[in-house]
Amino acid sequence: MKEGITVVKIGGNVIDDAAALKRFLGEFASLPGRKILVHGGGKLATRLAERLELKVRMVEGRRITDKGMLDVVTMVYAGLVNKQIVAGLQAAGCNAIGLSGADGNIVTARRRSPEPIDFGFVGDIERVDSDLLGRLLETELTPVFPAIMHDGCGTLLNCNADSVASAVALGAARLAPTDLVYCFEKRGVLRDPDDEQSVIAEITAESYPPLKADGTVSRGMIPKIENALKAVGQGVRSVTIRSSEGLGDGSGTVIR
Amino acid sequence: MKEGITVVKIGGNVIDDAAALKRFLGEFASLPGRKILVHGGGKLATRLAERLELKVRMVEGRRITDKGMLDVVTMVYAGLVNKQIVAGLQAAGCNAIGLSGADGNIVTARRRSPEPIDFGFVGDIERVDSDLLGRLLETELTPVFPAIMHDGCGTLLNCNADSVASAVALGAARLAPTDLVYCFEKRGVLRDPDDEQSVIAEITAESYPPLKADGTVSRGMIPKIENALKAVGQGVRSVTIRSSEGLGDGSGTVIR
Repeated sequence: MKEGITVVKIGGNVIDDAAALKRFLGEFASLPGRKILVHGGGKLATRLAERLELKVRMVEGRRITDKGMLDVVTMVYAGLVNKQIVAGLQAAGCNAIGLSGADGNIVTARRRSPEPIDFGFVGDIERVDSDLLGRLLETELTPVFPAIMHDGCGTLLNCNADSVASAVALGAARLAPTDLVYCFEKRGVLRDPDDEQSVIAEITAESYPPLKADGTVSRGMIPKIENALKAVGQGVRSVTIRSSEGLGDGSGTVIR
Repeated sequence: MKEGITVVKIGGNVIDDAAALKRFLGEFASLPGRKILVHGGGKLATRLAERLELKVRMVEGRRITDKGMLDVVTMVYAGLVNKQIVAGLQAAGCNAIGLSGADGNIVTARRRSPEPIDFGFVGDIERVDSDLLGRLLETELTPVFPAIMHDGCGTLLNCNADSVASAVALGAARLAPTDLVYCFEKRGVLRDPDDEQSVIAEITAESYPPLKADGTVSRGMIPKIENALKAVGQGVRSVTIRSSEGLGDGSGTVIR
């Protein structure tokens, strides 16, 4: 497979907005070449858990995925959201196939250690089956991943969608040059957080430390950039952080 | 593909019983040769709809699948039940892959005419992609279908799981000799409904009319047998109606 592969990750800001999601799926379907979509879940799982009056346990500001919550995220992410996205992509002419990690055993995860904090049925990605990914891409299928993986022993695990996207991109990079695109609510990494026009065009391992030191890159953006630099260091050709709007227009912050 | 294909359908009596489901998945995983699983949904979707206080509209004793109910069955059948089955089969050493009809566009359905009764988002199977089915089976994947299909235009449709099983078996029969197995709560078609030992070993197009005329085959069994005879007439090698217990032991009523 000589042609490149694009892995795009979307989150709640697209999934929770029916009009934005429809526009995005049309733009994603129009992207040339082999591609893969990874999606988070949005607010629907939280709303469903509330309606079911599940007790949400939090530790240090993070939700515990107990058995009830695992069932809810499996229903919502791997069921409703995934199948609506796949059906929407089919309608847009893109031959999508939804895959949890258990499907074809394509992604396995390891349940996170219960020490020091037991987050419940939460996993970290262990292995992506590049061979199966390649066979699916060769038959012109477009894999669509929710962040629900499995441990290979019958247990489903809720994973971080950003981490799924970077693991899948690393798996794809073993097949062909791979570009990873993280869509979020801003147009890119901004030099001035109040100015949407101040997108930093490129960040490299060399240009990053001063941006972190002077506070241009701060808080939630730090793990995003550091994960992106790590992915690039491990073989992903580029990582772009950008808005979902106008996908394919070349805008956003490119990390290489 | 010379080797035969076995298509097995299970319903609520297995899905709703965790111990029965686990035993069944182990037996299914041990079946030799290429195989496909089709599953219904069980009572979980109804229970979830009740907990969400969805208004269940019934016409002539049949539930209307409105948008709220479609979302519930998509979550439960294509999400929770499908992924639990796939993860359970993976744990049993069977390389399962869950597929709604939208996934890979493998099964399309047509929304049922709103005349004389509008059942909502309910579909009848239109087309099964035998080529994709064959490619998946050749790579030793075991497709696992919920009864959630799509119309190709972005709408998911709730289908009858028995009909999905027979359509998938007909699609498989274009690839290789195919045997279809319907699991239900009895050991087979019984000559005496109170005697589980009175299983009729074989029913054919010739032996069926007298069994219907004398009332041996009655009520809910009539459409099952007639659908089975139709499937056999259209190219499925055999249809077996049996219990899920002891799958592969050759028991049950065989229609050919």
